[in-house]
Parts: sequence; C-alpha cells; structure tokens
Amino acid sequence: MKVLLAEKAGFCYGVRRSIDIAFKALNNKDSSNVCSLGPLIHNPQMVEKLKEQGLEVVEELEKIDHNTVLIIRSHGVHPETLKRAQKIARKVIDATCPFVKKAQHLTQFLYDEDYLIYIVGEAEHPEVLALQGFACEQAKVVASASEIKAINKKSKIGIIAQTTQNPKNLAEVSKALSTVTKELRVFNTICNATLLRQKSALKLASTVDIMIVLGGKNSANTSRLAVLCKQIKETTHHIETADELKKSWFKGGEIVGITAGASTPDWIIEETVLRLKKWFNN
Amino acid sequence: MKVLLAEKAGFCYGVRRSIDIAFKALNNKDSSNVCSLGPLIHNPQMVEKLKEQGLEVVEELEKIDHNTVLIIRSHGVHPETLKRAQKIARKVIDATCPFVKKAQHLTQFLYDEDYLIYIVGEAEHPEVLALQGFACEQAKVVASASEIKAINKKSKIGIIAQTTQNPKNLAEVSKALSTVTKELRVFNTICNATLLRQKSALKLASTVDIMIVLGGKNSANTSRLAVLCKQIKETTHHIETADELKKSWFKGGEIVGITAGASTPDWIIEETVLRLKKWFNN
Repeated sequence: MKVLLAEKAGFCYGVRRSIDIAFKALNNKDSSNVCSLGPLIHNPQMVEKLKEQGLEVVEELEKIDHNTVLIIRSHGVHPETLKRAQKIARKVIDATCPFVKKAQHLTQFLYDEDYLIYIVGEAEHPEVLALQGFACEQAKVVASASEIKAINKKSKIGIIAQTTQNPKNLAEVSKALSTVTKELRVFNTICNATLLRQKSALKLASTVDIMIVLGGKNSANTSRLAVLCKQIKETTHHIETADELKKSWFKGGEIVGITAGASTPDWIIEETVLRLKKWFNN
Repeated sequence: MKVLLAEKAGFCYGVRRSIDIAFKALNNKDSSNVCSLGPLIHNPQMVEKLKEQGLEVVEELEKIDHNTVLIIRSHGVHPETLKRAQKIARKVIDATCPFVKKAQHLTQFLYDEDYLIYIVGEAEHPEVLALQGFACEQAKVVASASEIKAINKKSKIGIIAQTTQNPKNLAEVSKALSTVTKELRVFNTICNATLLRQKSALKLASTVDIMIVLGGKNSANTSRLAVLCKQIKETTHHIETADELKKSWFKGGEIVGITAGASTPDWIIEETVLRLKKWFNN
C-alpha cells in the first residue's frame, strides 16, 4: 500500500503560531493559572494535550482573576473584550493570527476614514464579531451579494473579508457594490491557507483509491475538506485520530491519500501514516 | 397629434458648460483668433453655429500661434498637450467637463500612490487617451473584463472608468480584479447623464406611436439612443434637424415621442417640436 500526503495539509500559520504561544506561556508558568478565552483551536486532541500541560479553557471573562495569564485565541477578540481582559488578568497574551489582526486594523482604518463598511462573512463567527468591534458595530455583515440591501447614500464604501471566505463570494459582493458609490475600497483579507488545502486535497483525491481526512469533527474547514473529497472519491473517511482507522476500508486498494484541516496537528498526521505503514508493511 | 418630450434629453452639464465657455470667449474676443482643439462637441449644427460666431476648429497644435485663444473641449486633453498649448497659445481656456477632470485627478492620485491602474473604456477614445497621460501611459485600458490579462503581482490595483461607460462593465471588471490583489480601489467616475437619457428614452418609446431621436449622426451617445429606441419602437427615426422630418412617418399615429443626445442643443429640440405642432395644428 502506497501512502501519499497532500502537498498542503495541517496547521496553517496562524494556528501553529497560537499553539507555540500557548506552550511558551505554559513553560513560563509560575504561580499563575494560564487560560485561553474559548478553545484555542477546533481540534479536541490538541486542546486536550494543552489541558494536560495546564491550559484551562474559560468561556467568559468572569471566570478569570488577577492571577490569570489569558491567551487570546487565533481568530481574535472584540476590542472591548480585550480592554476588559487587560483590566482583570495579570497578563494578556494576544495569539490573534497576524492575518486576522491585519483585517482588524484595516476595518478600523476604514471606520476612521468614514467608509461605509461591509464585512463579507458569517455574522455569528467569532472572527466577524471581533471585526465588528473595530467598526464600532457599524459594519454591515453579508454572507453573499444577495444579502446586500438598499444602500444609504454614502460616497465611500469599504469591504473587508473574513479570512476564511471564498474569493468568489468577495468578488460578487465587490461587483454589486462597485457602481452604487463614488469610491469602493476592497481589502482582500482572505488568507489562502483554506483554499490551498482544498486544492491540494482535491488534486490528491483524484489519484488515490482511498482518501483519509484528518481533523476535529467540530472543525468547519476540516469537515468542508471531507465533503469536497467525497464528491471526488466516494471512499473518503473523516477521522480525528489513527485509532478510528479500519482495515476493511483498504481492501483491494493500492494507494491511500491523506489530508488534514488547518487545525490538525502534525503528530496526528504522523501517527496515521505510521499506523498504515505498520499495517501494510511499507 | 400629441408631442411628448423625454424627461431627460439634450445637453448634459459638461457639454452645456463647454458651449457657454466658448460663447464667452467669443464675446470677449479682441484681435486674437479663438480656436477649439478638435470640434467642441459632436453636433455639426452647433459646431457650425459656433463657427459663424468665429470659433475655428484646429486638429493640431501646429496650427495655432501666440495670437490664439485655445479652448480645450469637454472630454479633456493629454497633460503634455495642455503644457505645449500653454507655451504656444496666447491663452488656453480649459472647458474639460468637471466630471472628466475629476477622473483625471483620480488617475493621477492612483499613479502617485503607486496603484496599478486599470481604465475601463475605449482605448482610442480621446477622453481615455488623455486619462492615460495622467498615469504616465502606465495604465491598462480594458473595454471589458474579458480583456484582463495575467496580472503582474502588485499589492494595490486602482480602477477608473471612462465617464460614459456602462456601469455593468465597471462592475464586471471590479469583480475580476477584486481577488487578485491585496487592495482594490474603484473610483466610479461614470457620469449618469448617458444612462439617464437612455432610461428616459426607453420609458417614453414604449408609450408612443412614433419616436424621434435628435442629434449628430457622428454622436456615439445619440446613435446608441436611436438603436435602443428602435428595439422598442420600430418607427424610430434618427435625425439631426427638423428639416429631415417627413409627414408620412406620422400617418395614423397619435402620439410622437422626442429625445435627444447629450450633445444636441435645445434649439434643435424646440424647432422640431414647433414644426410638428405647426403640421398637426396642436
């Protein structure tokens, strides 16, 4: 059995950075407790590993005190929440992904420059809720061009995208807004990590007999990878760890492809590859 | 016979302004000769009337001298041409349409700010050739989104539109460029005079028996009006003056609609209305 790995798979830059920051904070831990505001990433195994090392997950600021070192997770936080956290916690470590941070700065810039702001994204997503804070809750959030309602006359419109948005969506919203204003300024804040993983996975899926997608069942980007691969290769399986592998899946197959979501750690990928090699004597 | 006039018809703001400027220059004329660089507008009758008042048309700067008062026509001129004219002529009067002027300033702004510039328009149109001058000939001119070629990597792209462009065209180009760059800045420099005339003409054409479109046969916007009206009303006639009217066109008709291009003077519209009223005793 041949095992092939997708060219782009696993941790994106922002996720890897937030994990590094968390481990560093845990290593420097003294008498304080180290917490993250919400789970650091959408991978239960990695969150569990961090918990074993001492990283607590708190959902509300009310749960922390002046002895807490608080880590802000990669998709960022509302500026008011950050301010409140800084007042309560002993120390706040901001692990917001630099690409998300850039989108936050650009949102604030558009707000300061008096643009009417549109955020292309999911209204309830934590990243988008945080971006809204940088526009003093004045931005309009649209999931697609069809959600654009009648525009109040404004001479300048600015567009920001949730970093994991599909570029086609941003393009359609840009098209719809380009002629209803005197000036349209589009900041393409889409990070291409998601798209690159999808492209690599689809390329690989079309050349293998069985496809394995690794990552949290609660991870939106991993689940999307699995759905896309299944459209190409019916024998696609979405699992969180090597323990879920079943020998029967590989009967008659010669090549297995592996991919992983942006929040899936390397050791889960490595364990899976090793398990397959052990089973099939490669 | 009832005669109805389109709600929006005839001179646009920029054309009317250039005519006013020309008449004022002719009134103030002393020993100098007053010229326009190219015909002031695309209406032979108005150009002839201005000629009778003393306005010469020159096609090249070589034809003027230090005794010339030179009028720059409404669609503007290349900045180098303007500079050369100012060196040769006694006086240069700039009758560039303020909306075109704004597009020129914005093109220069985008160039100074290091944007890769796209002009949505006709490459050989004098307005576009002049705009190119404000981008030091570095702008890419595209008539539609399909003309966009592979993009050199540039973090900022700016879009300017020829003032008479169709908004749909600008929207498609904005869509195509919005996701190939980190920042897209679209200045919607389209003047809505052309579109308003088209909308009014089509609205009227659907309610009348005969449609008359007035304006220069060499006027692109008037010819376009005639084509659009003919699609709605087969009995559409494009004429330059009332003398071209034929009684036979109106046989059996009860309502006649009249529209006129952006370069058609009011007196041509008035003469036509009067002629019809005289013929049909209204």
